[in-house]
Amino acid sequence: MEVFHGPSTYEREPSRHPALKINSKEPFNAEPPVDELVRSYVTSVDMFYKRNHGPVPVLEDISLYRLEVGGLASNRCSLSMDAIKQLPKHTVVATIQCAGNRRTAMSMTRKVKGVGWGLAALGNGIWSGARLSDVLEIVGIPKYSRVSAYGGKHVEFVSVDKCKEENGGPYKGSIPLFQATNPEADVILAYEMNGEELSRDHGFPLRVVVPGVLGARSVKWLRNINIIAEECQGFFMQKDYKMFPPSVDWDNVNWGSRRPLMDFPVQCAICSPEDGSYLDGKGKVTVKGYALSGGGRGIERVDVSADGGKTWTEAKLAQGPKSGLGYIPDDDDHRDKWAWVLWEASIEVHLPADIVAKAVDTSANVQAEHVETIWNLRGVLNNSWHRIHINGTSKQLHSNL
Amino acid sequence: MEVFHGPSTYEREPSRHPALKINSKEPFNAEPPVDELVRSYVTSVDMFYKRNHGPVPVLEDISLYRLEVGGLASNRCSLSMDAIKQLPKHTVVATIQCAGNRRTAMSMTRKVKGVGWGLAALGNGIWSGARLSDVLEIVGIPKYSRVSAYGGKHVEFVSVDKCKEENGGPYKGSIPLFQATNPEADVILAYEMNGEELSRDHGFPLRVVVPGVLGARSVKWLRNINIIAEECQGFFMQKDYKMFPPSVDWDNVNWGSRRPLMDFPVQCAICSPEDGSYLDGKGKVTVKGYALSGGGRGIERVDVSADGGKTWTEAKLAQGPKSGLGYIPDDDDHRDKWAWVLWEASIEVHLPADIVAKAVDTSANVQAEHVETIWNLRGVLNNSWHRIHINGTSKQLHSNL
Repeated sequence: MEVFHGPSTYEREPSRHPALKINSKEPFNAEPPVDELVRSYVTSVDMFYKRNHGPVPVLEDISLYRLEVGGLASNRCSLSMDAIKQLPKHTVVATIQCAGNRRTAMSMTRKVKGVGWGLAALGNGIWSGARLSDVLEIVGIPKYSRVSAYGGKHVEFVSVDKCKEENGGPYKGSIPLFQATNPEADVILAYEMNGEELSRDHGFPLRVVVPGVLGARSVKWLRNINIIAEECQGFFMQKDYKMFPPSVDWDNVNWGSRRPLMDFPVQCAICSPEDGSYLDGKGKVTVKGYALSGGGRGIERVDVSADGGKTWTEAKLAQGPKSGLGYIPDDDDHRDKWAWVLWEASIEVHLPADIVAKAVDTSANVQAEHVETIWNLRGVLNNSWHRIHINGTSKQLHSNL
Repeated sequence: MEVFHGPSTYEREPSRHPALKINSKEPFNAEPPVDELVRSYVTSVDMFYKRNHGPVPVLEDISLYRLEVGGLASNRCSLSMDAIKQLPKHTVVATIQCAGNRRTAMSMTRKVKGVGWGLAALGNGIWSGARLSDVLEIVGIPKYSRVSAYGGKHVEFVSVDKCKEENGGPYKGSIPLFQATNPEADVILAYEMNGEELSRDHGFPLRVVVPGVLGARSVKWLRNINIIAEECQGFFMQKDYKMFPPSVDWDNVNWGSRRPLMDFPVQCAICSPEDGSYLDGKGKVTVKGYALSGGGRGIERVDVSADGGKTWTEAKLAQGPKSGLGYIPDDDDHRDKWAWVLWEASIEVHLPADIVAKAVDTSANVQAEHVETIWNLRGVLNNSWHRIHINGTSKQLHSNL
């Protein structure tokens, strides 16, 4: 047995927080209660959603771990964890969101295939590790390269797990070489999350973090980095995580007709109160949620309505553990460009009420007003306006009779 | 009188094509007929929309023209056109779109302030000139700089025209230093458009082209480039071209509460047939239009409906003068990342018909379903689904009786 390997059974899974809502037990897929999400700008390791495609890999002896880097590069290298830690340590605050976040809601209008996720298939972490661009320099590829000397144009990340979708092979994915070699893109090989050693569920001992890109490309349990000519041909690049129109269903899908999804659109959701809650009396309610956009684009505004979308109140936004509500530095040097914003709005409600939230990003992109218009067979990227219904308590209902 | 100056009167305006639709005569603001737009991937100089804020500047003697570059940089310089032309010549295919494109349609739901524009306040040009990043190296600012040695973080472009909004001063705007010094951002100082010397209406002798950003930052008739600490404080950065929610109107607007718009959202429009057209008979109709997104994001898909949005057909996309419909290279090295795509769809219509088009960009961002949700007091960035109504001919109407 190799020192670092993906088991075939679920006998060596790590322990998890009992509050997590389990969407699939084997492989383990779970998300936190939604109100947990907005308690803290940085999501704790325990409460960060888990998205696995097979049993969690096992590393028997970290001193024997090696990251293999090769392919269409002048050199190849084999790096121990000590060697990786000797490279300059870089820290990025980045929200990782599963492409399937809010899939269950999309499935309500018309069934989709995929693990059901509520609103919490995302989290905001502080990731530390080596810059991918520094590692690529070791194999002879300079910063800001579009093509390597041997014609490499993509960088493939290969895990060590065993995925059913890959017929027992490892999970993999790729990003363009230019993104990988661009230090501004902040792609890192992370060995720490929130200041602690990476946990097994999140990719121990080493994972990729590709900020501003959907979670599927931030490969965990990293074993190989390959410089390749064309994008990775793995299942999750070619037969999944692509965007189809509502007119395409499983009987007429042509996977080859679309590009792999990378960047993601503007998104927001209401985390508190929860959909279907009962509230006492009427008056002001504090509504809280998150908002984010892909590609490093910031959030310009979040609008909240307590009357199903007739009138709107602008929410106060916050970013950074130290910043108060209403303050986001407006230049890229100071804001966390890869991270979500948390927001809150105090709004007058008349119960029962339909509360709606929608965000606008700094490129003025908006969310889809109705989920039906963005329905797709895999249920990815549901970024429709988030609508919840709040009831009055039964006492209040009686008083209305 | 200076060699290069903005007149106070409209006596020396250039001649313009008589087919242009004039939205304002003085200053001259005009757009081409919409069906002209989709005749050619590259928009001709004549048919390219004109957006001026005062009389067109006059250059008496090009040999005496000087571009002055200075501010928070180690050096300053004064460049003649010959000096600028001796720098490496760089060509970019880029669509420039006015933030007010489709303003008239937004104004229909609720009045906005600003020049009325139909669908054609944009055009796709081939721009050649010096890279801004090369010019900034001359004053001692290296490529990929975020801050200059003297604390400069923005690059301001100052025109030579006289604008009413600037109390007779010149039009100006700025972009972040990082964008200006990043050769990948393709910002150029253009002296040629479509292979010919820049025309007076489009900024002769030198203009900025900031690809992927709304037209307002591509300053024409360029005289000064200033490296500055904070973003430009000019009218068009601080009191205009900002995005407000529908709840903000002229009685409660706080311009200081928003950032200047730069990037723009996914957009598309139907150019043929035109809204309100009468068509003979029923059967297949070829619908044509354009689609684009900001920030270098590509167009993933355009959906067209002939029944008001109930069922959709995917349009064929085309980009590049030589490419056929249905072919867009899917990597950034080969597609024109800063340019629009033209599209067409052959759809079955039953007259009268409501035809709708909407685009999805490569980040999966979508257009707003209804213009009311993105209404803003200045009428900028109307990227709502484009809806047109087509009538049957009166003969057909009779046959239906």
